[in-house]
Amino acid sequence: MPNEVTVLSPATVANIVCGFDILGFALNGPYDKMVIRTTATKGVTIINKDNYGLPTEPENNVLGAALLALLTEVPEDIGFEVESTKIIMPGSGIGSSAASAAGSVVGANHLLNMRFTKEDLVRFAMFGEAVASGVQHADNLTPAIYGGITLIRSLSPLDIVPIPAPPLFITIIHPLIEIKTSYARKILKKEIPLKDAVTQWGNIAGLIAGLMMGDYSLISRSLVDVIVEPVRSALIPGFEQIRKLSIEAGALGGGIAGSGPSVFMFSKDETTAKAVESAMTKEYQKTGIGFHTYVTTINTEGVKVSLNH
Amino acid sequence: MPNEVTVLSPATVANIVCGFDILGFALNGPYDKMVIRTTATKGVTIINKDNYGLPTEPENNVLGAALLALLTEVPEDIGFEVESTKIIMPGSGIGSSAASAAGSVVGANHLLNMRFTKEDLVRFAMFGEAVASGVQHADNLTPAIYGGITLIRSLSPLDIVPIPAPPLFITIIHPLIEIKTSYARKILKKEIPLKDAVTQWGNIAGLIAGLMMGDYSLISRSLVDVIVEPVRSALIPGFEQIRKLSIEAGALGGGIAGSGPSVFMFSKDETTAKAVESAMTKEYQKTGIGFHTYVTTINTEGVKVSLNH
Repeated sequence: MPNEVTVLSPATVANIVCGFDILGFALNGPYDKMVIRTTATKGVTIINKDNYGLPTEPENNVLGAALLALLTEVPEDIGFEVESTKIIMPGSGIGSSAASAAGSVVGANHLLNMRFTKEDLVRFAMFGEAVASGVQHADNLTPAIYGGITLIRSLSPLDIVPIPAPPLFITIIHPLIEIKTSYARKILKKEIPLKDAVTQWGNIAGLIAGLMMGDYSLISRSLVDVIVEPVRSALIPGFEQIRKLSIEAGALGGGIAGSGPSVFMFSKDETTAKAVESAMTKEYQKTGIGFHTYVTTINTEGVKVSLNH
Repeated sequence: MPNEVTVLSPATVANIVCGFDILGFALNGPYDKMVIRTTATKGVTIINKDNYGLPTEPENNVLGAALLALLTEVPEDIGFEVESTKIIMPGSGIGSSAASAAGSVVGANHLLNMRFTKEDLVRFAMFGEAVASGVQHADNLTPAIYGGITLIRSLSPLDIVPIPAPPLFITIIHPLIEIKTSYARKILKKEIPLKDAVTQWGNIAGLIAGLMMGDYSLISRSLVDVIVEPVRSALIPGFEQIRKLSIEAGALGGGIAGSGPSVFMFSKDETTAKAVESAMTKEYQKTGIGFHTYVTTINTEGVKVSLNH
């Protein structure tokens, strides 16, 4: 058995416009980095190698809580020490806490000779997400662990379906503002018109079919959210303008990453994705709000692990 | 140009459990039969060869209204005479009016050298559906015209997506009771909980993925409707018991065909579909309500047309 691994755990985007609470995908960067080694006694030790000031008591830390959940199903006297370097900024909306939770359990599973299934790992990592947001959700965790685009058909019982997709380039803008996930959830209407729900599920069906057929036009036509985005987009300065300019620059479509503030756009090729980045940058400079942008692709393998010794 | 065609227009099932107002499929029988011939003057003449007493004024008749809509886009002085033999009982819930509307315009298009697209034909046939139900819907028409399983991603603008599927056998029971489509629609809640909508669109995404991957288990797990069926199933005596016994007999799942009263079940093979039929029959005999049953498959070509002369 190896006793140390280095883990790169990817950023992820939950929801994919019309797929609120069911769809997500993993990105080829940014990545959080972790070095995980086994220890001879039960428990988790966390060493933060960044400046985010995250808690080091494992039960209050996302990756710690995920590893503690995993350890409850490990009979041996074994524990983990984790050096964590977060690159994905907490609160960016591209799965920062999910990267910590997913990366730690995938890495630990390599140190345990892969005894757990991916579904087990999602189950453990959800305890980490609960530390971050108070809710055991899995829309970011699942693509981080499985790679690619994933559907959570049902959360209880957990039913995960990897969705094949054609090549897609992704442009992301992360405005440096804070949106609390709990607030972004609270402002949603608890009841929605059946008519709008029908529109939404037509688009979800179209998006799944478009992805599986590699039909970019159908993907583009289906990237419409009539339920969540009309409420949440008001929290993101310049959202409508960014989308308009991105589409004009050739993007297939896109929307809020998770509960924001990041916004993502899909493009068919890298040239377009870079043109979208330029359009976003030019527009956002006007707002006076700081921001980061990324141009990346879909990460089809999920968390990357290399064995050290 | 041929001047007479014989048309077999299939029964169809709208909704497919979780896909309310967006999904439907065509059946290999029962079929309505029509003989359509061109006439030298604009207009539509209807000759009913059955005993349903349907109106013969074209504007009050489903197939008449569909053909009149088509003729508005035909500049020549030409019309149609239709001998219609309805086999699909009106009010059965398996697309009786759609079969009349779809069959007439597909047949007429053959007499016009196929000048219209399938999408045009759906558009014309919707005028026929409006005569039957007061609403221009397309969930039965579309699979009748396209064949197979179809998604209506959007009704306005019309966006139709044929969905590939593995072999499926279908068992149908048609209880001889009347459910008005308008009533079955009126009793639905106008507002639904967001939480239930998320469950529903997870199932729709799972159903589309399952059909396209040929994953029977995923299809089966996804055939759950938490929105419409809980309201409408009360209108169909014995519904829950029929489903329970069908699943026990090996069916993948199923539900109300359109707005009922027919109920359909999917099976992986014919032996199972016949066992489901036996289970349904045995149970329904207890109710004292008359009924018909069918065992059939998905009709992948839609309306069948043969040229007479």
